[in-house]
Amino acid sequence: MMPSDSAVQFDSSGRLRHFLTINGLPRETLTGILDTAESFMSFGQREIRKVPLLRGRTVVNLFFEASTRTRTTFEIAAKRLSADVINLNAARMSTSKGETILDTVRTLEAMHTDMFVVRDSASGAAHLIASHLPSHVRVINAGDGRHAHPTQAMLDMFTIRREKGGFDGLCVAIVGDVLHSRVARSQIHALSTLGVAEVRVIGPRTLIPTEIESMGVKVFADMAEGLSGADVVMMLRLQRERMEGQLVPSEQEYFSRYGLTEEKLRHAASDAIVMHPGPINRGLEIASSVADGERSVILSQVTNGIAVRMSIMATLMGGADGGEETG
Amino acid sequence: MMPSDSAVQFDSSGRLRHFLTINGLPRETLTGILDTAESFMSFGQREIRKVPLLRGRTVVNLFFEASTRTRTTFEIAAKRLSADVINLNAARMSTSKGETILDTVRTLEAMHTDMFVVRDSASGAAHLIASHLPSHVRVINAGDGRHAHPTQAMLDMFTIRREKGGFDGLCVAIVGDVLHSRVARSQIHALSTLGVAEVRVIGPRTLIPTEIESMGVKVFADMAEGLSGADVVMMLRLQRERMEGQLVPSEQEYFSRYGLTEEKLRHAASDAIVMHPGPINRGLEIASSVADGERSVILSQVTNGIAVRMSIMATLMGGADGGEETG
Amino acid sequence: MMPSDSAVQFDSSGRLRHFLTINGLPRETLTGILDTAESFMSFGQREIRKVPLLRGRTVVNLFFEASTRTRTTFEIAAKRLSADVINLNAARMSTSKGETILDTVRTLEAMHTDMFVVRDSASGAAHLIASHLPSHVRVINAGDGRHAHPTQAMLDMFTIRREKGGFDGLCVAIVGDVLHSRVARSQIHALSTLGVAEVRVIGPRTLIPTEIESMGVKVFADMAEGLSGADVVMMLRLQRERMEGQLVPSEQEYFSRYGLTEEKLRHAASDAIVMHPGPINRGLEIASSVADGERSVILSQVTNGIAVRMSIMATLMGGADGGEETG
Repeated sequence: MMPSDSAVQFDSSGRLRHFLTINGLPRETLTGILDTAESFMSFGQREIRKVPLLRGRTVVNLFFEASTRTRTTFEIAAKRLSADVINLNAARMSTSKGETILDTVRTLEAMHTDMFVVRDSASGAAHLIASHLPSHVRVINAGDGRHAHPTQAMLDMFTIRREKGGFDGLCVAIVGDVLHSRVARSQIHALSTLGVAEVRVIGPRTLIPTEIESMGVKVFADMAEGLSGADVVMMLRLQRERMEGQLVPSEQEYFSRYGLTEEKLRHAASDAIVMHPGPINRGLEIASSVADGERSVILSQVTNGIAVRMSIMATLMGGADGGEETG
Repeated sequence: MMPSDSAVQFDSSGRLRHFLTINGLPRETLTGILDTAESFMSFGQREIRKVPLLRGRTVVNLFFEASTRTRTTFEIAAKRLSADVINLNAARMSTSKGETILDTVRTLEAMHTDMFVVRDSASGAAHLIASHLPSHVRVINAGDGRHAHPTQAMLDMFTIRREKGGFDGLCVAIVGDVLHSRVARSQIHALSTLGVAEVRVIGPRTLIPTEIESMGVKVFADMAEGLSGADVVMMLRLQRERMEGQLVPSEQEYFSRYGLTEEKLRHAASDAIVMHPGPINRGLEIASSVADGERSVILSQVTNGIAVRMSIMATLMGGADGGEETG
Repeated sequence: MMPSDSAVQFDSSGRLRHFLTINGLPRETLTGILDTAESFMSFGQREIRKVPLLRGRTVVNLFFEASTRTRTTFEIAAKRLSADVINLNAARMSTSKGETILDTVRTLEAMHTDMFVVRDSASGAAHLIASHLPSHVRVINAGDGRHAHPTQAMLDMFTIRREKGGFDGLCVAIVGDVLHSRVARSQIHALSTLGVAEVRVIGPRTLIPTEIESMGVKVFADMAEGLSGADVVMMLRLQRERMEGQLVPSEQEYFSRYGLTEEKLRHAASDAIVMHPGPINRGLEIASSVADGERSVILSQVTNGIAVRMSIMATLMGGADGGEETG
């Protein structure tokens, strides 16, 4: 059917042209993105923060699934690169007039837009779009179903590298609803590629996919065991809708067993950092004292997210037109 | 009551200041817009695409009727001219607080905005607004009721000129729901003014206005006859709501009689082009094989629409302040 | 509980860093804002209107209560200062995912945004947000509950100064629903601080707060008496919802007693000006002949609002980073 993500992501001369998934990307590609992001960090300081790398380019935020937070980070990143940004609530557009998604995207491309940032509730949506656009248009996956959320994983990696100095020898624990999480899938691929020592997932059996061990991770149902000695604790967001089904007993019981409290955190390494992709559910998957505590790097993740998204946009666009590489 | 559109469109020294309708515009005006659009085509290529013609100007997209696609083309065109763009879902604004449309527009003008792009479900809305604003403010009609959609017609003319080299001797067939179509009215005015040899309309009697022959067009109820020898086939969008009334029997029957298929297209000239204002209804007014086929210039129309809207904006604004003419 | 507004508004070296309320601001601060706004008035003319004072800065319009008109004025003001603007319908954002307002704001700040323009139906919302952000972030109150709407009051003061040459000796009458009006509160504070001779409020007893006389104003229930000799007549908007309760008898009766007509206006000074924050209810609190008449400065208020908001933004941001003062 469709060619694999990895094949679609590169052009014929081996340059990255889309960013759809971490799976299959070589370590140098990930490291290059992190290095370029580092060079953008100074732009986030309180001085002039615009660079003209995408001046004259048009970036379309095509969100078929609502997410003000993620859309805003891409909008800010694109504007700091001097791009023009068009925000489309595509759900409204495509359904109200019965146009297909591919017709919508082809029409937008015909307006000579340069890059699509796509979020959709269907796995594979960004891939589908990338496969049907001319080669000079770039596509970034901003989350597709349960499949992948690669820019989130990259900002997580960037945060880990800044906090820990690198990936060698690290033990990383991912906690919560792994089953429904596109974030977790992308994190596991990135951590494996960047060479951490050990990746663990912790959660109730109902929220851990059965095939997960084939990805090279260790599964724990008990927090004390799973967190033992971990250098990095990556919490996942629990959708409150899960409570309505039979996957999770109750908010109280979930928090009691898997909510990250200061007490449970004592099982991790003494200098462990705590991460969360946001928005956080205080008192459900994480206690406020931990979210706001000194081990938390949650707000740093947000800050880093701008630089990492600038880096990914600049990297993809740098490969267009035979233009110069950035970073 | 209101002065005619033509009178309103020109200032006292004969310069175009609003773009409300094609009806009454001289051929030189239309040709000037097409020529200026030609000069903007290079900006759509993959190089620097911003020009500073509207730098410091504020363009307000005032859409009382939803249309993400059309609004996006105006937004992109204005930003490529370096204007600031304000998008207003005016329906929400005016109704929620009970302000009249004219108070809304006067208020926006008082913020020293320079141009209004207006879409409304009522015929004459853009004209009404233009009549009540100070003379330095420009108004572009982005579609008013069944009356006119002049920028769409201009991008269609631009596409025909590019594809056919000019208008002399052309036979153009407009197919579908002419009765409810503001696009068709504007197309007929433009084609007549630019001097094509023949304009035909094709559709079921229920969808052809009775007075249409007074506009100098020939009416056909049969596709084979109407398409015979046509150089340009301009399809119209059929609103699915028409099915609910008694105007159209069923989707199947409509497609069977008036849907453009490869078979029906064989009646046209061998180098005929196929156009559609979008969004298309595949399998209703046009077969996918035709929409995506080699005769189709539908996506070129979208691309051309940016240059043509840039041209119209620059032409109107060039007439302000005694500024230089562009193109 | 919370420190007072005045304390929060200034940094440790006495510079204005937030604009939350007029109450407690010294006269020099208000005069400085008006002077800076004067310097921006030329930018509203039909020439180049961008200044680079906020270039590279990101301004977030955080509207928890819908107001297209007010949001648009801030958006235009920020863009004329060359800032990037992010518009957030925060109501939608915060409720759909259950995040708290403070988490939302902290997350946005972590994206290195520089300024929040906040509107909320709860009194104290802007103050709350300002109290929880790092010191380099600025907050402007764009209306909080019944508490304050200080930028509206400042544009009103700017308009009075332009029309009357100053504040000395002026008699100002505020007419209408003072009880529910955040605008009136801010106007009274500003007029008192700037030293007008007399402030009056006029309205039915049900719409005048009982403690209002402690603010140094005179209360009138009769329009003829209250308007007698007034130099400035500031009308308030009457929410039509008030009709549903028992506060106002009927639209007809309200207009008959408190609607500003040409007849009632004759009681004021012969050169009195008429103001209204908009949007106006024609035939409810003001007759069309007065709103559109020669005494009306309502549209000037709108125009002035852009310059005043540019001034406030530039003043707050000028205090950041030890940057230069503007104006």
